[in-house]
Amino acid sequence: MTSTVPAAPAAAESTAVHPRLSINQATIKYADLATALTVTAAAGVTSIGLWREPLAEVGLPTAVRLIADSGLRVSSLCRGGFFTAPEGAVRRAALDENRRAIAETAAIGAPTLVLVAGGLPEGSRDLVGARERVRDAIGELADDARAAGVILAIEPLHPMYASDRAVISTLGQALDLAEQFGPDAVGVVVDTFHVWWDPALAAQVARAGAGGYIASYQVCDWATPLPADVLLARHYPGDGVIDFAAISALVTAAGYTGDVEVEIFNQAIWDAPAADVVARTAASFGAAVAPHL
Amino acid sequence: MTSTVPAAPAAAESTAVHPRLSINQATIKYADLATALTVTAAAGVTSIGLWREPLAEVGLPTAVRLIADSGLRVSSLCRGGFFTAPEGAVRRAALDENRRAIAETAAIGAPTLVLVAGGLPEGSRDLVGARERVRDAIGELADDARAAGVILAIEPLHPMYASDRAVISTLGQALDLAEQFGPDAVGVVVDTFHVWWDPALAAQVARAGAGGYIASYQVCDWATPLPADVLLARHYPGDGVIDFAAISALVTAAGYTGDVEVEIFNQAIWDAPAADVVARTAASFGAAVAPHL
Repeated sequence: MTSTVPAAPAAAESTAVHPRLSINQATIKYADLATALTVTAAAGVTSIGLWREPLAEVGLPTAVRLIADSGLRVSSLCRGGFFTAPEGAVRRAALDENRRAIAETAAIGAPTLVLVAGGLPEGSRDLVGARERVRDAIGELADDARAAGVILAIEPLHPMYASDRAVISTLGQALDLAEQFGPDAVGVVVDTFHVWWDPALAAQVARAGAGGYIASYQVCDWATPLPADVLLARHYPGDGVIDFAAISALVTAAGYTGDVEVEIFNQAIWDAPAADVVARTAASFGAAVAPHL
Repeated sequence: MTSTVPAAPAAAESTAVHPRLSINQATIKYADLATALTVTAAAGVTSIGLWREPLAEVGLPTAVRLIADSGLRVSSLCRGGFFTAPEGAVRRAALDENRRAIAETAAIGAPTLVLVAGGLPEGSRDLVGARERVRDAIGELADDARAAGVILAIEPLHPMYASDRAVISTLGQALDLAEQFGPDAVGVVVDTFHVWWDPALAAQVARAGAGGYIASYQVCDWATPLPADVLLARHYPGDGVIDFAAISALVTAAGYTGDVEVEIFNQAIWDAPAADVVARTAASFGAAVAPHL
């Protein structure tokens, strides 16, 4: 008997926006909150990852209203962290800022506050001490996060940022921290750009998934040569060397079913019109990542 | 009774060249072999790490004579490796080149051939496969090295070079490879620039030492911002953020007693007169590294 099941509409599917795609606002850095929400929703994307500074520009009540009106999910708020300073006024101010960030995360209905640890304090070579202070800071914040229903998502950053941006450098190290507090308060971010090179990646993603610690999966690509400012070295998925099939399969096998953010720091992409960037992001995601979710 | 032991000549000691300092020739990149040997010996340094290209310029017999005449030890030869290509003529040529490098290492009386793994083949995203090919290549070369009395020293490179230069990115990963062959044929390089950020560093240095796998200890410093060409991001010990006291203590505790190479890729340092660079290297080493050996 000949099957009467209609052929899958492959062409239509390949152009549809994947329901788990989230546009991290950093990808359209120069768009204000209202514009970011509008162009994201208009593209058929259903989720967005927000940053604190554009919220602050309009004020939290307005931000909450704009987000509700957009109909978008908010996959995360970026960012807390930067708490490697030794005890003193700078450290206390950073911890207070993180408490405000936790409150904002809850207010906008995002499940996750992304934490970037911070680099070595100016003039310091004490990497071990800086890492201990990150642990201690998370310890001070974990109860606040738990009470607010917010997950503090530790993002290990690529080791090339260890001195000036984040002393948390591997997924295993982030998990060593998160496991001290439990997945109801602390999780980890798996960002392909930061972890793709890690020989322990498969084992650590599995470990993160088994414990329920994967709070966010972020994707963008790595390509060489790096630009003069290595902070801006990120590319659309598919434009570099990262094996999104392999890493997405690991994350999926680890049980992660949440939104997948595309977060790209790249001057040329920032300089392009936001709507074009969102369309290109959705297409790149559809081709390089979505088939493996 | 008043002690009659004379005070230690602290000032004199601090300016003396440390007996374990070795100048890696890459630090004085534009010096030919004869010049490199001459300026190194003239500075009171007793060891040098050589590169294959300057040997080739004069030919191996001449090189052997120049080295003998210099009275210097040769701490290592750089470099073998670059064997991530898939099976075929390119891979076979790379393996033959490595066999020649092993023979040269033996001929100049160096204990160690430094291996840089190589990056992803052009157009490839198969990092796992590239890493397997590194293992297989070392497997093909291990017996040759053993027969020649040469240690193949796998150098994990900083993860920012994983795509284009070395798919071996951590000391733990290098040890996973070396342990498959044994320390009579395969070891690892501990280079502060490449491994300083690694949260697993203390454990992996101890593991390397316990197994007898530390074939080379190299030092130079990390500072930000990185230069436009990240290959040239290295600095004199003490000019950046690396804690040479802590890492040198780990390496010493692990039982390493060999030469300690300073290997710096830095355009400004390359552009300076070689004798000045060697003097500055000896002083930096004396201040930042030597007290911790």
